[in-house]
Amino acid sequence: MVNVKSYQELFLKYLDQSPWPESPKALYEPVDYLMHLGGKRLRPVLALIAYSLFRKDVERALPAAMAVEVFHNFSLVHDDIMDEAPLRRGKPSVHTKYNINTGILSGDVMLIYTYEYLLQIDDPEKIRKMVSVFNKVAIKVCEGQQYDMDFEQRSDVTIDEYIEMIRFKTAALIAGSLALGAIAAGAADEDVRHLEAFGENIGLAFQLQDDYLDTFGDPEKVGKKAGGDIAQNKKTFLILRALEVAGPEQRRELEKYMGSTDFDEQEKITAVMDILRSLDIPAQILSRKQFYQDEAFRHLNEVNTINQNTQILYDLSMDLIGRES
Amino acid sequence: MVNVKSYQELFLKYLDQSPWPESPKALYEPVDYLMHLGGKRLRPVLALIAYSLFRKDVERALPAAMAVEVFHNFSLVHDDIMDEAPLRRGKPSVHTKYNINTGILSGDVMLIYTYEYLLQIDDPEKIRKMVSVFNKVAIKVCEGQQYDMDFEQRSDVTIDEYIEMIRFKTAALIAGSLALGAIAAGAADEDVRHLEAFGENIGLAFQLQDDYLDTFGDPEKVGKKAGGDIAQNKKTFLILRALEVAGPEQRRELEKYMGSTDFDEQEKITAVMDILRSLDIPAQILSRKQFYQDEAFRHLNEVNTINQNTQILYDLSMDLIGRES
Repeated sequence: MVNVKSYQELFLKYLDQSPWPESPKALYEPVDYLMHLGGKRLRPVLALIAYSLFRKDVERALPAAMAVEVFHNFSLVHDDIMDEAPLRRGKPSVHTKYNINTGILSGDVMLIYTYEYLLQIDDPEKIRKMVSVFNKVAIKVCEGQQYDMDFEQRSDVTIDEYIEMIRFKTAALIAGSLALGAIAAGAADEDVRHLEAFGENIGLAFQLQDDYLDTFGDPEKVGKKAGGDIAQNKKTFLILRALEVAGPEQRRELEKYMGSTDFDEQEKITAVMDILRSLDIPAQILSRKQFYQDEAFRHLNEVNTINQNTQILYDLSMDLIGRES
Repeated sequence: MVNVKSYQELFLKYLDQSPWPESPKALYEPVDYLMHLGGKRLRPVLALIAYSLFRKDVERALPAAMAVEVFHNFSLVHDDIMDEAPLRRGKPSVHTKYNINTGILSGDVMLIYTYEYLLQIDDPEKIRKMVSVFNKVAIKVCEGQQYDMDFEQRSDVTIDEYIEMIRFKTAALIAGSLALGAIAAGAADEDVRHLEAFGENIGLAFQLQDDYLDTFGDPEKVGKKAGGDIAQNKKTFLILRALEVAGPEQRRELEKYMGSTDFDEQEKITAVMDILRSLDIPAQILSRKQFYQDEAFRHLNEVNTINQNTQILYDLSMDLIGRES
């Protein structure tokens, strides 16, 4: 039976059969380390499922799947340097385990290998289309990271700007993974566009779900303590929306808590959560998430496929963005 | 009349007519700053001349020329971070003027734009070939930078290893610039290969010339004080070759001087130069340079062109690697 797990396994087998060069070791060992840290392999799986909607010989989409996973990991290693993140998937991040120069250069070579994998698709016209789509995605991911860093220095970020930022930084690559798989299969332009729009909206819903769960999720189910974003002063949808609708006094309270790290952490989290609840922010973020979810499935319904694999996409998306909440 | 200067001007006009996006400003302003710091524009000019050997409508090669210049500047900004270089062409390097995160992310987006320019060539099969050639070059440039950093930590680097390092780090992109121009013009594979080999050997001769001049050049002509590499303990061809042929005592002397920064600079430079001269190293590096120069022109003679523009390549190369010395 075809299911998400079978695509994950197909990809992991391909990953293991695609060794990085042996030399220079200092360049490729960190790449290999990062590529094997695990994860759900969401993006390559999306590329493979998108291909399978139009053609049965899904193994021919493996280079495209590898391209999006290598690119995703490139962005992780450079982002981790910029964000000074010591950990990645619970293990030392590349620049922590090795050093910053290694992180920069190993990331660079991964970005180049992304294109090397795209070249392995058999038809030059498909390659041209895929590189074109991929470039647009990759540029958005860089621009999204820049906006994210810019926003940290600003106190007047609007919800619309925030949505654009996550559309670039997170949703674009989810959309692109689906588009690349579909193009590799020779799908019609219209089907590619609907799958892309599906992916982009799922990506937005996913990020809003993430913002919601970090503060209001059940710690048992989420697997971490609630309020991490608040403790780190992260201006997610919740805070930005609250700042938009708060009266002067609540606004001052929010800015006081979210502009400092001097407060007792638990006291701060509880106080900010109370403000968010009093402003009805949890319901608002869930309703915005529902909006993108509906948009996503509207586009998915428009895709003309050869089989019932859209059901797998539906199931995978619901796992990603949460059935309950 | 067609000459190097006319190609430089053609490229600079195209550069000025190809603005970077306005937003996010923090991402693209550093790119624009770096791209306009000047320089000889050697690589784009080589791409344009290579195209002109086979076709007259040279303006169609401008996107390929831009691609190699953007890539070259990408490698400069990331290398300057890794090498902690405060200056680039006499001005603050990108990470010095802005910050390291900006240097990383602006470099990343430049690398992606390299492919965006390659995509502007009209024919999908040419694009496939050009991306394939370019990827191999770009991977070599990263690997060469890694070997260069590795060599700093090692005391047993051989001349052969050094030549391979500069073949990757410097010569590959000169070769690739010529190859991309030729492929854009639809040149035969054999002509592309000969131009590539010409460029690689010119690149090696150029780097050896650079190594020679830094220590033994006429400071008036070179425009800087002699011995900078020695002062900085840089293990160029000169030092590595000397370590290979020196007897035990001279070897100990060399290692003593080149392993420390505690010596009086002028005393150190004079002492190391004396050792190099006594081992006949200046003549050896010039003879090795002559070898690559001969190889280069042997390949250039094999190229079947429609006109006499190989003379421009010959003249440009001789300016680059030095007519005298």
